[in-house]
Parts: sequence; structure tokens; C-alpha cells
Amino acid sequence: MTDYIVQQVDLREYAEKVLKKLGMKSEEIKIISDSLIDADLRGLNSHGVARLPMVYVERIKKGLISKNSEYKLIKKTGAMAIIDADNGPGQVAAFKAIKHAIKIAKKTGISFVSIKNSNHFGIASYFSMEAARADMIGFALSNAGADVAPFGAIESYIGTNPFSIAFPAEKNYPIVLDMATSVVARGKILLKAKEGENIPPGLALDKNGNPTTDPNQIATLLAFGGAKGSGIGIAIDILTGILMDSPFGIHINRADRFNCNEQLSQSVGALNISFFTDVKNFKKNIDKMITEIKKLRHMGGVKEIFLPGEIEMKIKEERSKKGIPISEDMFNELQGLEGCYIKNYKKN
Amino acid sequence: MTDYIVQQVDLREYAEKVLKKLGMKSEEIKIISDSLIDADLRGLNSHGVARLPMVYVERIKKGLISKNSEYKLIKKTGAMAIIDADNGPGQVAAFKAIKHAIKIAKKTGISFVSIKNSNHFGIASYFSMEAARADMIGFALSNAGADVAPFGAIESYIGTNPFSIAFPAEKNYPIVLDMATSVVARGKILLKAKEGENIPPGLALDKNGNPTTDPNQIATLLAFGGAKGSGIGIAIDILTGILMDSPFGIHINRADRFNCNEQLSQSVGALNISFFTDVKNFKKNIDKMITEIKKLRHMGGVKEIFLPGEIEMKIKEERSKKGIPISEDMFNELQGLEGCYIKNYKKN
Repeated sequence: MTDYIVQQVDLREYAEKVLKKLGMKSEEIKIISDSLIDADLRGLNSHGVARLPMVYVERIKKGLISKNSEYKLIKKTGAMAIIDADNGPGQVAAFKAIKHAIKIAKKTGISFVSIKNSNHFGIASYFSMEAARADMIGFALSNAGADVAPFGAIESYIGTNPFSIAFPAEKNYPIVLDMATSVVARGKILLKAKEGENIPPGLALDKNGNPTTDPNQIATLLAFGGAKGSGIGIAIDILTGILMDSPFGIHINRADRFNCNEQLSQSVGALNISFFTDVKNFKKNIDKMITEIKKLRHMGGVKEIFLPGEIEMKIKEERSKKGIPISEDMFNELQGLEGCYIKNYKKN
Repeated sequence: MTDYIVQQVDLREYAEKVLKKLGMKSEEIKIISDSLIDADLRGLNSHGVARLPMVYVERIKKGLISKNSEYKLIKKTGAMAIIDADNGPGQVAAFKAIKHAIKIAKKTGISFVSIKNSNHFGIASYFSMEAARADMIGFALSNAGADVAPFGAIESYIGTNPFSIAFPAEKNYPIVLDMATSVVARGKILLKAKEGENIPPGLALDKNGNPTTDPNQIATLLAFGGAKGSGIGIAIDILTGILMDSPFGIHINRADRFNCNEQLSQSVGALNISFFTDVKNFKKNIDKMITEIKKLRHMGGVKEIFLPGEIEMKIKEERSKKGIPISEDMFNELQGLEGCYIKNYKKN
């Protein structure tokens, strides 16, 4: 498939134009487009501008995501806070939440900020890494529409419920865990379906509960790591949906139904390293751990051992210089969206 | 193998006697034996009285675990605290830590208490469930000597680094996740080796990095869920060892070397549900989630879908009535330990 190559500055300009056309406020435009471009830069294309048509254009125009949210801080006490996203975009609410979390953790050492009435928040690591840049350990979790079968079941109950945790390093890239609790993210499977390819075995079941490799026959996804990953997915739903007295499990309105608000819940937080140990020393030890792990003997076929998030940061470095590849189908879908065009691009 | 059946009251009396013989203080005896018996009751025999000979008797007599620890609260500010376990048993330090965490979270909504200079702390859920009993969400994590290969590697770097999170329910058992971050816990593999049985494929590698099912050929264990579980194991080591400026990864002194202190680190914490939502409502929603998940269509061969921790609580109910089964080998190892005997038992 022919790829187009777009420089990040041009892709960002395009995303901002689309969001502006939708009538979003400038602060929101900045946060959402930055989150989308960051995903594209780190190779997480399924969470980048590819989400503009469906998550933003379609849902905002249908009034399913509000563009006039007030993001009310409805509670702030001790080391916690709650934000009502007022049905605004998840990225904006979560970005405000992690900023609050960092501020709170400066006084308390640890913080936990939950969000209700929210929407899809893009890549979880966008928020955890914000805390890591402030020399804190950052985390972010979200529930999502039911797509995953709890261990032992053959129908969906929990979402792909992603979570991220980020640790700052001194000389190396930060260690950034960012994962869906299904074996693979739903976005990646949708992509396979679009490309007419099969998926590897062990990822999904068909409507009769039998394993399937045909992305079009998928009725439910499997949790990663069996009972353990299933348990983590359940825990994330509790730490978001149930904690916010909001929809959880099968009660979440799926984004692809386009008939009502998602009412997702998210939680973010920060652990202030300086309360626990010397920050410089902490970061040096992270570097030491990274160096030691990378030196371990590795499996045949594995060229290099990568720490969580490392591959993505390497891709970002490369794409920052060479530009972001976009598939032909995607490119065509983006061109003309809300009358906006990517102006500068190269055909690969 | 012939099983012996021992009532919990008799097994507890035995464990207390052994610990007393070792010269432990009464508060410590109570916490450790309660944690061990709780493990045995919940079917987690590898973390029950089976640990008495090696973890307690041998290490305490060699002076590798202190019986005169002061468990100093060396810092307490905001929503966090640090305890220096002073090389005392991990259970005692972690029990004190979760008590502090619960107390702190009453004021702050969320808390995080870390422990340094600690030892093996038994089952992580012993501490998380203490918070759940106080209507909080409890969590507990520990690092451990290197037994697991990071994803892509063929030699150990991280420990089996367990973690637990517990959520209180209204009518049902609490939802209690308690897992090693290796595919299976090391204790279970040691048991297979002892019984001369093979382990299933996909759990471990031999010294050349090849998959092995022979428990005697194991050089390193695999992390659960591939890169994701490996990343979680790494994260736990950072949230304990590196955070406490203490040994991490391969720098941890393995308990089975018997030549120096383990210097493990642990972290526990509590999230005060009442700061976020109505507690009664939260617990009702947990019940609702449990009921709904248990009603899902399940896989052929699966009789019932179990929530995290449910099987263990069912076993506990049964063993509370019928007694705790102990294998003949184990029983023989326990009888006479430090001159102590299990007095009442039935041969199965």
C-alpha cells in the first residue's frame, strides 16, 4: 500500500484546522491535536489522526461529544480530586486531571484524580508521561465499551481498558508502560479487517465462543495473560467506572453505536518521587536498570531487548526527522474532512 | 500422596509455637501466623506453613531475618509514609504499613506507604484485604530475587514481583487480585519439582534459553502475558526497590542463598472509597458486576466463571469447616520443627 509521508508540523496544522472547523475552543484544539500527533509520532497510528473522522468529526457533529464542556473540578480534598468532564473530549479532561494530580502530589507525595462523564482519551501514556516530565511517576487508566470476555467467558463484558505508568530516566528514554488489557488493542484488529488480513490465533473468539483468526468473525476479544490480564481489566473498570458511580462493563455505551454519550470514566495520578528518595539517584537507577536489562542474553530472533515504551520513542525520533507515514486509504479519508486538507506531503 | 487434615486452630497453634521458639515477639507471632494460616485456608499452600522451615526457621536462626526489628516509621508526610523494616519479617512491616495507609487515607482519600530493608511478606492479598475490610481499595506490591526474564531475554533479571488489589463487595466475596508477574508462581514450580512432575510448556526456559517442561532444568521463568506482564514486573520493581533506593533486579539477594539479608522493598496503599462515591452504592455495584460476569456464557469445559479471589474464598470456607490438607512430605517436615508438633490431625 502506498504510504504518504507528512511532516508533524503539517499534520498538526491539519488536525487543528479540522477541530477548529468543528467549533472547538483553542485550548481543546491544542491538547487533542498534540495527543493525536504524539500517537502518530510514536507509531501508535491507530490512536492518532486516524481517530479524527470517527471519534471527533462524527461524534461531535452528532452532539455525542460536547465542544462546550466546562470540565468542572467538582471535588478536591486531601490527595484526591474529581473532575466532571461534562461530556467533553477525554484528552482535555485527562490533561487537566493530570495537571491537578501533579500539583496535588507536590504537597502530598501521591495523588489520584478521577474523571466522570468523559469520552475516549486517546493514548493513556500522553498523561502518565506528563507526570514523568515533572519528575514524578505518572499513571492513567480508562474504561471502555465492552469488547473483552472475562476469563472463562465467551462474551464481552469488560472494555479493552487501557492503562499506562511512566517512570522518568536520566539519560535514557523514560520507561513507559501503555497497554490495552486485551491481547491486542481493538484498533489494531480493525486495521487488519480493513486490510483483509487474518489475525494471529489466540486473540479473539467468534459468536459461538470458538477461537477465530478472521477479523470479521470476531465477537469478543480475549484478555492478555489469561485470568491475570482479565483480572487487571476488571480492576481498571472498578477504579474508573464503579468508583465514579458511572457506567461500567456492559453498561457503557459503545462509541461505535453513535446513539448516545459514552460516559466513560478515567483515573490518573502522580507519585512525587522526591518524597520517597533522591530524584537524581532514582533516575540514575532507572538508567542502570535499563542498561542491565538491555545487556541480558536474548532469544534467537530477537535483535535487541526493548524496555516498555522504548520502541515507540525510537519511532518518534525517526518520524520527527523523516515525517509520519500514512496509508493511502487513511490519507484519502483525511483529505477533504470538514473541508480541510493536508497541504504538504510526499508520496513514498 | 496421603494427606493429613489439620484444623486451622491446631495449625495456628503449631505455627505460633514454632515462631515463639525462635524468639519472636508476640505481636510478630500473631501477624505472621495469621498470614500463613490465611494462605493455607485459601488454598495458597505454597505461601502457608510450608514456608516456616526455610523462610522463618532457617533464616532467623542464621540471623538473616531479624527478630528484634523496630519497624521505624522514618517518614510520614502528606499522603505517604516510609517504614524501615529493619530486616524484620515482611509480613509484620507490611501489616503495619497497611494500617498506616488506611489511617492516612481517612484524611487524604489515597495513600502510599513504602517499606525498605524488608523480607518476604507472604501473600500480598493479606494486606490489600485489610484495607478492603475498612471499606477501602487496598493494594500491595513486592519485589523479589531475580527469577524472571524480561520479555525477549533468556536470563533472569526481575523477581516474580507479586501484586494484589482488593475491592470490597456488599453480599459477595471481595474481588481480590493477587498474582505473581511470572506465568506461575515459583512456589508452585518448586512443588512440581519435589513431586517429580513436569510443568506445562510456556512457563520457563533452560540455561540455553530453550523452553523446558522439566522443573529441574529451569534457569529462568517467563513473565505472564509476554511484553505486558514483563513490563508490569519491571514497574513493580521500580515502585518498590528503586523507589526505596534499595536493591532491585539482579542486585537483590536471593532468599535461597542463605548468605545475606534480602533487603526487599514493598509498597502498600489504600484508596478511601468514601472520598469518591457512596460506599454502599460502590459495594452494590461490585455485587452487580459479579452477578453479571458470573451469568455470562462460558467456555466448554468451564463449569463456572470465577471472579479474582473467589475460588480462594470458597476454599477458605470449606477448609474453615473441614480443615486444611497437608501433604505427607510437608507434614513430616513440619513435625518436630524446633521441637514443635502438630498435635491434632487426621490422616485422610
